[in-house]
Amino acid sequence: MGGAGKAQDEGFALSEQPWGGRFGAEPDPLIEQFTRSLAVDSRLYREDIAGSRAYAKALLGAGVLTADEQQKIDCGLEEIAAEIESEALPPPSWGRVGVGGDAEDIHMAVEARLTEKLGPLGGKLHTGRSRNDQVATDLRLYSKAAAHDLQAAVEALETALLRRAREQVTTVMPGYTHTQRAQPVLLSHHLLAYFEMLRRDEARLADAARRADVSPLGAGALAGSGFPLDREALASDLGFGQASANSIDAVADRDFVIELLSACSLVMLHLSRLCGEIVLWTSFEFSFASLPDALASGSSMMPNKKNPCAAELVRAKSGRVAGDLVAMLMVIKGLPLAYNRDLQEDKEALFDGVDTTLICLRVTARLVLGLQFDREKMRAAALGGYTLATELADYLSRKGLPFREAHRIVGRLVAGALVAHKGLEDLTLAELQAASPLFLSDVRAHLTLEGSLASRSVLGGTAPARVEEVLAHVEA
Amino acid sequence: MGGAGKAQDEGFALSEQPWGGRFGAEPDPLIEQFTRSLAVDSRLYREDIAGSRAYAKALLGAGVLTADEQQKIDCGLEEIAAEIESEALPPPSWGRVGVGGDAEDIHMAVEARLTEKLGPLGGKLHTGRSRNDQVATDLRLYSKAAAHDLQAAVEALETALLRRAREQVTTVMPGYTHTQRAQPVLLSHHLLAYFEMLRRDEARLADAARRADVSPLGAGALAGSGFPLDREALASDLGFGQASANSIDAVADRDFVIELLSACSLVMLHLSRLCGEIVLWTSFEFSFASLPDALASGSSMMPNKKNPCAAELVRAKSGRVAGDLVAMLMVIKGLPLAYNRDLQEDKEALFDGVDTTLICLRVTARLVLGLQFDREKMRAAALGGYTLATELADYLSRKGLPFREAHRIVGRLVAGALVAHKGLEDLTLAELQAASPLFLSDVRAHLTLEGSLASRSVLGGTAPARVEEVLAHVEA
Amino acid sequence: MGGAGKAQDEGFALSEQPWGGRFGAEPDPLIEQFTRSLAVDSRLYREDIAGSRAYAKALLGAGVLTADEQQKIDCGLEEIAAEIESEALPPPSWGRVGVGGDAEDIHMAVEARLTEKLGPLGGKLHTGRSRNDQVATDLRLYSKAAAHDLQAAVEALETALLRRAREQVTTVMPGYTHTQRAQPVLLSHHLLAYFEMLRRDEARLADAARRADVSPLGAGALAGSGFPLDREALASDLGFGQASANSIDAVADRDFVIELLSACSLVMLHLSRLCGEIVLWTSFEFSFASLPDALASGSSMMPNKKNPCAAELVRAKSGRVAGDLVAMLMVIKGLPLAYNRDLQEDKEALFDGVDTTLICLRVTARLVLGLQFDREKMRAAALGGYTLATELADYLSRKGLPFREAHRIVGRLVAGALVAHKGLEDLTLAELQAASPLFLSDVRAHLTLEGSLASRSVLGGTAPARVEEVLAHVEA
Amino acid sequence: MGGAGKAQDEGFALSEQPWGGRFGAEPDPLIEQFTRSLAVDSRLYREDIAGSRAYAKALLGAGVLTADEQQKIDCGLEEIAAEIESEALPPPSWGRVGVGGDAEDIHMAVEARLTEKLGPLGGKLHTGRSRNDQVATDLRLYSKAAAHDLQAAVEALETALLRRAREQVTTVMPGYTHTQRAQPVLLSHHLLAYFEMLRRDEARLADAARRADVSPLGAGALAGSGFPLDREALASDLGFGQASANSIDAVADRDFVIELLSACSLVMLHLSRLCGEIVLWTSFEFSFASLPDALASGSSMMPNKKNPCAAELVRAKSGRVAGDLVAMLMVIKGLPLAYNRDLQEDKEALFDGVDTTLICLRVTARLVLGLQFDREKMRAAALGGYTLATELADYLSRKGLPFREAHRIVGRLVAGALVAHKGLEDLTLAELQAASPLFLSDVRAHLTLEGSLASRSVLGGTAPARVEEVLAHVEA
Repeated sequence: MGGAGKAQDEGFALSEQPWGGRFGAEPDPLIEQFTRSLAVDSRLYREDIAGSRAYAKALLGAGVLTADEQQKIDCGLEEIAAEIESEALPPPSWGRVGVGGDAEDIHMAVEARLTEKLGPLGGKLHTGRSRNDQVATDLRLYSKAAAHDLQAAVEALETALLRRAREQVTTVMPGYTHTQRAQPVLLSHHLLAYFEMLRRDEARLADAARRADVSPLGAGALAGSGFPLDREALASDLGFGQASANSIDAVADRDFVIELLSACSLVMLHLSRLCGEIVLWTSFEFSFASLPDALASGSSMMPNKKNPCAAELVRAKSGRVAGDLVAMLMVIKGLPLAYNRDLQEDKEALFDGVDTTLICLRVTARLVLGLQFDREKMRAAALGGYTLATELADYLSRKGLPFREAHRIVGRLVAGALVAHKGLEDLTLAELQAASPLFLSDVRAHLTLEGSLASRSVLGGTAPARVEEVLAHVEA
Repeated sequence: MGGAGKAQDEGFALSEQPWGGRFGAEPDPLIEQFTRSLAVDSRLYREDIAGSRAYAKALLGAGVLTADEQQKIDCGLEEIAAEIESEALPPPSWGRVGVGGDAEDIHMAVEARLTEKLGPLGGKLHTGRSRNDQVATDLRLYSKAAAHDLQAAVEALETALLRRAREQVTTVMPGYTHTQRAQPVLLSHHLLAYFEMLRRDEARLADAARRADVSPLGAGALAGSGFPLDREALASDLGFGQASANSIDAVADRDFVIELLSACSLVMLHLSRLCGEIVLWTSFEFSFASLPDALASGSSMMPNKKNPCAAELVRAKSGRVAGDLVAMLMVIKGLPLAYNRDLQEDKEALFDGVDTTLICLRVTARLVLGLQFDREKMRAAALGGYTLATELADYLSRKGLPFREAHRIVGRLVAGALVAHKGLEDLTLAELQAASPLFLSDVRAHLTLEGSLASRSVLGGTAPARVEEVLAHVEA
Repeated sequence: MGGAGKAQDEGFALSEQPWGGRFGAEPDPLIEQFTRSLAVDSRLYREDIAGSRAYAKALLGAGVLTADEQQKIDCGLEEIAAEIESEALPPPSWGRVGVGGDAEDIHMAVEARLTEKLGPLGGKLHTGRSRNDQVATDLRLYSKAAAHDLQAAVEALETALLRRAREQVTTVMPGYTHTQRAQPVLLSHHLLAYFEMLRRDEARLADAARRADVSPLGAGALAGSGFPLDREALASDLGFGQASANSIDAVADRDFVIELLSACSLVMLHLSRLCGEIVLWTSFEFSFASLPDALASGSSMMPNKKNPCAAELVRAKSGRVAGDLVAMLMVIKGLPLAYNRDLQEDKEALFDGVDTTLICLRVTARLVLGLQFDREKMRAAALGGYTLATELADYLSRKGLPFREAHRIVGRLVAGALVAHKGLEDLTLAELQAASPLFLSDVRAHLTLEGSLASRSVLGGTAPARVEEVLAHVEA
Repeated sequence: MGGAGKAQDEGFALSEQPWGGRFGAEPDPLIEQFTRSLAVDSRLYREDIAGSRAYAKALLGAGVLTADEQQKIDCGLEEIAAEIESEALPPPSWGRVGVGGDAEDIHMAVEARLTEKLGPLGGKLHTGRSRNDQVATDLRLYSKAAAHDLQAAVEALETALLRRAREQVTTVMPGYTHTQRAQPVLLSHHLLAYFEMLRRDEARLADAARRADVSPLGAGALAGSGFPLDREALASDLGFGQASANSIDAVADRDFVIELLSACSLVMLHLSRLCGEIVLWTSFEFSFASLPDALASGSSMMPNKKNPCAAELVRAKSGRVAGDLVAMLMVIKGLPLAYNRDLQEDKEALFDGVDTTLICLRVTARLVLGLQFDREKMRAAALGGYTLATELADYLSRKGLPFREAHRIVGRLVAGALVAHKGLEDLTLAELQAASPLFLSDVRAHLTLEGSLASRSVLGGTAPARVEEVLAHVEA
């Protein structure tokens, strides 16, 4: 017996809230506004209605509803979905402008509308169910769909990269380390590096989708439903791979949200690098590529400007998605089991992270497809910065000189050439032989972009034959 | 000469964008949608119009506008503000539903509307100005106002805490460390701890406001305006304390945004602790307080539940604001000077951080004012957990025993009392003297809540006289 | 030709650095100290030496080394490993106190020592290899091992939870939502909720290990090695599942580090909740459990205190690991391909995240095994807070009343009982029937903990039979 | 009476811990190792000993110690400081290798050593003190000193920037927005932008130091000391500006740590931008500057490379410090008052954030002083990208054309010049007049770098006279 609350006087039973039986007052308007989530979770109306339709079938199986009742509820819910979709405003705004009335959330809004339609029968739908398992179900359905959408958008970007790699399969550019020219590589090889990253992102999204693919419905508030629901049939009816094994865990954890946001954060990091390179490449200094006017923006003040704004924004939005991830990590920290209202914060962070990642994937694909590469500038740049030095050191190594010595000899050649304002390829055989007698006339073939490229013919290397092989494989 | 862009054919001058002179194509729809910020920055319409009205005066001073032109522009801008405010939808939604048309942002929307009204004269307003200094000005005006609003909301919560502290000035409760009962304290002393935290928060907000109080207007795109603007008069006209000293810095940095978000994050941390305590105190186990029904929520499934949902949400939203801070830190990281489009991400994070902190301050004040304390339960709890043990050890110390030995002796008394299921206050003098002959009959006065409280009479201690002194001081 | 560097005078070839051929000066001491990573990466000596031994075999296959040379290098490396391990100081400190001399990092330290032993032959080992592919290899070997260690520690904690769940299989406690008593559950069911979370953590760690299981060795600096290495044999020799498909990606990305830190962050979140509950349960107010003295700590001042310090620290360290994750997200943001020195920051964040998660898993397992539950207190608490209310509403639903009406009726009963300071189980049949005529004498069986528990018999519910079933399944 | 712990048998008084009176067992070794902080907090030995020496004086004033006792304790503490400093290993490692023995932390280590020296008298030092107020005092002393060190390092970097700005006062470079050439600016103006940022950083550090400048000593465990300490004298003796006003707040909050980490994060963001620009400027493509060999590093594989490693690492470490900040935000979230062991995590994050920021400031100053600018390349670049376009549009505006039209006309000129591969400065007067009859022969003076620069003569603009004025002012 007992209770934390002090006794109320006899006029307590005033609250009209659906949960208001023991409440002696209506919610304070500020508190009500603060705790209402309808403007945010109305976006889950499809998932919520699908969940309720399946749940009504389960209640039929459990003997709670008659076939006729279940039929009526099913039709009512179908109608509500149609009503929402016919609103002038798009569903994400539902709840913002009065649809759903003053309901606390999408779950209560749908139930209230159903009860308007069906009378007390509407009040049977929530039998043995809690918003705790209901919202977890909605969010898992959303997460699965979001992960699939994200995978499709990742694939579309992969396709864009492959198309450009195929087209530029022989374009030579300087490869960089430390933003310093390092060695010649193929542009196609460089683009395929991003392809590889995205493939891992796809796999991470698939893993996240798999772990979201568990139905909490039937877990009740935390202890399990008090009615004999066939939870596996219910899960299967909703397209879930399985039903959750523990009711407390089912309503209490949001690790599937955090895992999906982690996967999104990694996608965004990869995009931040690719778009950062687009910014560099389209700079006057690099001039490796330009954006078509339709993909760039101007300045309100400077008539000369053509700015890679979309690429910059994608780069920036990597911070936004990381912020969403941090928010959720901090929200969950230290919470006792099972459900806490803190979990309501999960939706905005997740929606924002998913929406941002999706649009950024699409924008990046557009930029990748639109980039106009300047092959001549890239090729010319590939020789600058003494990028053949490694090939020259390798040449000496192949003649038996320990690499560390070969490195030092070529380093000195570079230093001398810098002083003389020459390239390595401008050095005479005599000059080379003065540095090491191992240099013979065959060295000339190595002092070319093609020679250097061809030498990198290990698996995964930038040798044209290797890159062609990879392209052919992934295109298949 | 030159340029990163490849030559375009002669049909280039197609773009109708305000910055479109050198552009041969209209923006791609996806890119345009992605880079448009009107739905977000329309919220700055007041600041933007205020900035433009002041700017037109500066252009008058610089000889760019005639008095008549300036007058017309001023009236036009005033009308636009009125138009926006008379829209059916609240300003934050401006731009979402067509107001502002297809403008890229609030700056262009206002200029476009002005030009509709005034013809080519509208095109004079942007003389010597860039959106780079314009948006920085808007955001600094917003930040100053936001910091002041936040300070006021912090003060309101301070007032709420003071009111409750005054009312509960003599209520005794157990003080905790490690969530274990430690020593008796006054509830008022506990509430005043939060008062102190909030005072520091106020000071941090004031510091952030002070550093935001610098006008960038006249910095142009990055190099300074090309017209002889009196930037100090302009700053003063807008209520800024000073004009920025370096045009590149003025458009490139957003440290004032991050500083404000840092201050908000600390406010939110403090609220997360206070609201976390409200959750604990209203638990059945603690039962130190209850929330009036109007400040609590029920369960959709469990008729017995009365949940401190608002307190939980405040606690959770500390993660959200920290996420906004992280987002901005990451956005700025590594960007070259001066303006980059990445900076456009500043607004949503800042708006969200400020809005969230404001509402959470208000909600917490409501909860603090509403809490119904159960003084009897608190007082009873204050004795549990052997909370007088420190006073007992202090007693021995005052008799000359080294504290470390006194600690050990009392520790053993506690251990013995635990076995005997007694409180320390239940021990007989003989039992105490068996532990140490220093215990005399005067020890009895120390084995009371009042004795223990009175002993903590150092500055800042929980002794009633001290707390009264502090309260009187801060109430003054 | 050309170069960003200005010409140096003829005395340029001064640097004794292994990469110093083109350098005309030794590193500035401050810069050298700042860029040196030996104190951190010396921890990777095992991985580095294993990688080099395998690499020497690959060089034999590529015709760079003779069998005799490879043999000498192999023995030399084996000796160096033994030397490091025989140092007085443990390997993590290697590099801090002079071992490895003034080498820049573990790679150069090992090469330098090898060259001391073997002369110029030591300089052949780095043929066709770069520190870029070398360090990525070391870090992937480390990550795989770390993920496996973490999985083992997760499993040990799972085992601890299962042991306690089995032991407490029939212990009843109040289940909570919003830190308010909600419905009775079994303690075993509650502990199994954590078991489920940890199983998902294990799976995430396995996924991270799988994606780390790719050998970058042979990628060279970024373009692929210039020597005909059999990279697949090399990968297999080191125990990797496959060789990387793109050399630029191989040296440029650290998504495997971030993925592992994300998985660690989720483990830590779960531990923060479990340890947060240990803090609550061992509080005076809950008193559901106590920690044996050996697992708690005292206070320097208060002789009465017994504090759950280890649990608090685990909870706190969830922030630390999230900080490591954020650090890495921000480090990688916006970096152009391929390798940048920024990546050197990966190691401390990863080591710290892994070490922290490992020790926290072990400490939590110790706490779980040590907790002394107080079954009587838990059972008594399970009835407080009107936890049978849902069962009572379900009872009415089972009699055909729409649940929403049943909820309201029971809510009013709760409100009345609160006023009367009674429990629901104390109400007479007449009192119940005054609220609803559907209450019959069989209701009495439902107004018990056992009745309520037994009703939650859906899959995943807390009904004793269900929990026993789950336990039997996972113990198998 | 009562207690969460179950009764222990009579053999309970076994623990030798200084707080072990009520403990019946020694700590479990794993738990002891996990909760020990000596290896980390030994770094605070100076602050701890200073705090204890001042505290002993306060105990003299409170009548707890005699003058002779205080004298002995003072000498003993002085000796301990000397002992620690004479250790072979530097103080930060104290505790790692046995000094301090098996003490839990620096506080207990010092007390234990004092007791070795003075016998039971050593046990008097902790009278009326708790580690809770002691560690807060230590950490505030450290924070103040750290903030001052950081301010000094910021000032040193400011000085370096001023020196280079003075030296390069007339060097022209392209100013950038969106990493696209925008308008000509002075290099000195660009460097002074960073000077401004750092001045704000200094002010933030000063604010953080000010808020840390409050003495918690005398707050006891949470309720205030039980002895009549003169807390204001104590504060003043330790160099604090004031004593804390509330004992619970004094031991419970760490907002001063977070504020200092926030200020560090902003310093690091600014450094990440400056060092990111150093990376860009020293790239082959920009070639605006080079690093002297002593400030760059080479590649283990590529003999041609000269990498700006130190600049890259500074950029990366901005992530590390942000990670420290996030860690602390998450640690504090939701903790009840007062002290919790979670707070022990504050030190590593703070030390790491401060150390990292300090070294990065020093390294960046070295890089700034060492950069070798290539004025010719910068000047040549300043004309590329049609950077005079704004000046041309301003010219038309000055003749009365609405700016928006002027912008469009010049935009078309740029587009035409791009097609013709000409610069704007290459256009003939006739060509200009074909675009607008407002162009007269005086336009020629504006089509120069000097003309464009001179026009930006507003306060804060890049006009040489303005920049000279600012420099003269800040140098004064």
